[in-house]
This record gives sequence, C-alpha cells and structure tokens, in this order.
Amino acid sequence: MKYCSTCGHLVKQSIPEGDNRYRYVCVSCSTIHYQNPKIVAGTVPVWDGKILLCRRAIEPRYGYWTLPAGYMENAETTVEAAERETLEEALAEVHIDGLYSIIDVPHINQVHMFYRATLKNGHFGAGEESLESQLFAVDEIPWEDISFPTVRKTLELFLEDLKKDAFGVHISDIRHPMTATRTKDDL
Amino acid sequence: MKYCSTCGHLVKQSIPEGDNRYRYVCVSCSTIHYQNPKIVAGTVPVWDGKILLCRRAIEPRYGYWTLPAGYMENAETTVEAAERETLEEALAEVHIDGLYSIIDVPHINQVHMFYRATLKNGHFGAGEESLESQLFAVDEIPWEDISFPTVRKTLELFLEDLKKDAFGVHISDIRHPMTATRTKDDL
Ligand SMILES: [Zn+2]
Ligand SMILES: [Zn+2]
Repeated sequence: MKYCSTCGHLVKQSIPEGDNRYRYVCVSCSTIHYQNPKIVAGTVPVWDGKILLCRRAIEPRYGYWTLPAGYMENAETTVEAAERETLEEALAEVHIDGLYSIIDVPHINQVHMFYRATLKNGHFGAGEESLESQLFAVDEIPWEDISFPTVRKTLELFLEDLKKDAFGVHISDIRHPMTATRTKDDL
Repeated sequence: MKYCSTCGHLVKQSIPEGDNRYRYVCVSCSTIHYQNPKIVAGTVPVWDGKILLCRRAIEPRYGYWTLPAGYMENAETTVEAAERETLEEALAEVHIDGLYSIIDVPHINQVHMFYRATLKNGHFGAGEESLESQLFAVDEIPWEDISFPTVRKTLELFLEDLKKDAFGVHISDIRHPMTATRTKDDL
C-alpha cells in the first residue's frame, strides 16, 4: 500500500494514538487503513465413501490436487462460501454436514475453514479453475501431489476420524509449512 | 474506495475477466482490489463459575456489557487474537479451553469467533476500551444491557451448555439482528 484509497494521497506507516501497531495512515486525510487476515473456506466433499478432490488449473500449485476452497466474499456466510467454492471448482452441489477444521496460517494472514459435506446427487466436474475432479477412496489419496499444507492436514485428520466414525472440530495452526508444523488439536 | 492504493489513480467498479462479481479495479494499473470479511475474535472468560464481562468505553454501544473481543490482526492466529483481546479489554490472562461459537454476520462482512477460556489467576481489570470489568453469576447477566447480538447469542448458548455441562462448537449466523435471526446450530 502506497496511496490512500479514500483521497489518493500518500500513506506512511505510523502507530496511531491509542494503538500499539504500525498502520498505513494517510498523510492528507489521516484515514487509518487497517489490514486483516482473510478467510479461505472449503469443504471435504464425500460421496459413496470417497472424497472429491480437484486438480488445480491455476497457479500456485498448478496441477496439484486440492479440496475445493477459496476466499470468502463479503455478504456471505462461511457456510455459503464453502458451498459456493465447491460448486465453482468441482461443479458439485453439497449438503453441509458440519464444521470440520480451522487452520490458522498466520505467516500469510489467512484462516482456512473446511466443512464436512455430502454431494447432493453424485454429480461433479471441472470448474474454470480446475483441470479435473475425481472421487478418491481413502487408500487412493494422491499424497505426493497435494496442493497445500492445510489441505493435507485436513485430509489426514479426516481419514483418522473416518476410521473412528467420529468427527470432531479440529483447531490447529501451521506456522511455516515448509519447515515445521505446530498443532493444537486438543483445543 | 475511490483511489488505487498501489498507484493513486482512480478505481472504478467492474467485473474482471473470469470473475463474476463487481470489484474495484484501477483505471491506470489495472490492480483488482478485493474486499473480504473480517474476523472478530474473543473469549467467554470464566472464573469460579462466573463469566467476565467488560463495559464498553467506546462507541458503538458505549456503556454496554460485552465479552472481550475485537478484530483479528495480521500475523496472529484466532487463538492468539482471542487471548490478546481478553488481555487488552479485561486485563485478564486466560487459558483457552476450546472453540465455542462461530457466528457469521454477513450484512456487515464479519465472522465472530468466541473461544471458551479460564482466567489464569483471577485477576482482571479495565483496559483502555473498557469502563470496568466484572464477574457475573449465571443469574446475574445484565441481559438488558448487552452490547451486540453475537455476544448475546454466545452467552445464551453458553448458559444452556453450562446446565448440561457439555460444550459443543456452535455455528450460526445473524442476518439482520434488529429484526430476526436465523440459526444453524445443528451444523
Ligand atoms: Zn487520504
Ligand atoms: Zn493503480
């Protein structure tokens, strides 16, 4: 951020009165421009005991397999965002069964939320951001080609819970996915 | 938003190629400025069977009682945000016991997340944004003077669960709090 979105003048970083963090503040109109984490919402879509994954047609991680998920939009709920992303990326209508995982990713200012979901009619396909979609049995998950650490983590938890036939809500965080993970699954 | 935060030129609303929503797009550098919901994180802080509330020293809802909560910041987790807000507003250090409620408030582009928490040592006070803090027994909650619908909803759920001594994770949404609420507590 270089310019004020309200008046077009330059911003500079300073700590506003009563605050304790550097913010972008306009040198002309004094507007404070806060920046906050974004929510990525998605689903673990299940049909006939198999899990629906999409192969990404966009960067980053072009060609890798992912759970359908994407940025939550203004004016929608987390449930609606998860349903919408599943429809857009996998062309699949789902019934939401419950919240499943929340994974904080603080170094990229994101919170990933996945809901358990069931396909409504078994139909699916490839949306504009997907090369293809495919149902995978639990022993067929393409672990070598999974897109993102939060998707891998959610799938790992899901398969464990599937064995126990008991699905909790899992809260965890991934601090630096390429080096180490720290989880707080007991929360 | 009137001006591009990247280059300072005017933005206009248009639907980018491959998108299906109006976005603010710069007329000069073509940067697309996405806008996304914000997370408000807080706690239900408990000590000796009582619930800690803060009386707001700021608008909106100056003078009303609230659970400690506020905007999640970049580079922190939802748990850290909830702990930080509890320390800032109620001067209370807490141990987080588990996720409790997620309430989508789509008409103001917010997602409210409350964690169950226990005071570490019984100490609390009034932070800069609070007039005072006070522990309330379950039959003393000042229902007439609660700050926000998401706080009321979370307290109502919490007291019900307290009776049963069983705390789930509650997902719901509040669409137009001054007229009607729609909940999906079964998710
Ligand atoms: Zn300005
Ligand atoms: Zn620009």
